[in-house]
Amino acid sequence: MNVAVKTEGESRQLKLRPLEAEAFAPFGQIVQPGEHPVPANGGTARRHDIGDVMVRLGEDSQLRLSIFDCEPQALPLRIDVLERHRLSAQTIAPMQAAEYLTIVCLSGPDGAPDLATAQAFECAPYQGVNYSPGVWHHGVVATERRSLFFLQSWQDGSPTDCEEINIPALLVTR
Amino acid sequence: MNVAVKTEGESRQLKLRPLEAEAFAPFGQIVQPGEHPVPANGGTARRHDIGDVMVRLGEDSQLRLSIFDCEPQALPLRIDVLERHRLSAQTIAPMQAAEYLTIVCLSGPDGAPDLATAQAFECAPYQGVNYSPGVWHHGVVATERRSLFFLQSWQDGSPTDCEEINIPALLVTR
Repeated sequence: MNVAVKTEGESRQLKLRPLEAEAFAPFGQIVQPGEHPVPANGGTARRHDIGDVMVRLGEDSQLRLSIFDCEPQALPLRIDVLERHRLSAQTIAPMQAAEYLTIVCLSGPDGAPDLATAQAFECAPYQGVNYSPGVWHHGVVATERRSLFFLQSWQDGSPTDCEEINIPALLVTR
Repeated sequence: MNVAVKTEGESRQLKLRPLEAEAFAPFGQIVQPGEHPVPANGGTARRHDIGDVMVRLGEDSQLRLSIFDCEPQALPLRIDVLERHRLSAQTIAPMQAAEYLTIVCLSGPDGAPDLATAQAFECAPYQGVNYSPGVWHHGVVATERRSLFFLQSWQDGSPTDCEEINIPALLVTR
């Protein structure tokens, strides 16, 4: 992944790459069929286990289920805000969706996004993602057409769980 | 909903009905776009909140993420087993899916399925479901073609959370 050095009045460029397990591993898990399914539903289905998300304990802990109905965005796409949930994983599963983007970034030592780690992944309609707690990410971006996504976020009940931050502009390109 | 009286050597019939909010309410929530979305993702998306799933607290609580890859089943469909998770909600979101079925049933006073409450719903590809804790259900059934479903179940770490039970055969028909 190359991030061009930012200069005054110019956006860093972030090139799209396909969503692949090894590349996405620092940020979470891909929600897609794997290599080792097990029989399920009386032999009529194959179950692919993606992983277990550890639960944070809190009196007000809740799992929030939503649908995001997203208008398609044109490339190149300029982004200048990221969010993270320090205490909670967040899962996205495309429902009625075409290709879409997920843009992620790890934290630096000070907790702010370390833009040198930023990645923009192009996801197939059969691929979802599960962000690990604390991973900075941009809102899901449809590119081909209006798309529906199932999205759930873990709400631990504390106001500090959801953070948004402005960043120097990134220009996501093919 | 009519369930024919069972007679020796004959299956009860359960007629399919469309998945609609009022009819499904005793069993959980429908995961679909609603009437009152809120703007999200900088105005490029509409967020539809489905609901919050209360978290059961336990040291080993986990959210299990899976994909079910289901072969299509022909109608009429004979079913003779149901399962429930007394302590946990379970969510299904169709990913690459055509129409599919969800078959649900409430518990009677003794905890066993009360087959008089059984319902078979035909779901559109943009509709998911969230079963409330304790609702008896059959494994998700694809009918039109091989389909992928995102499925998550809440694991509270106790062996009693997942129960399966054999029932007198139900014949699901149009």
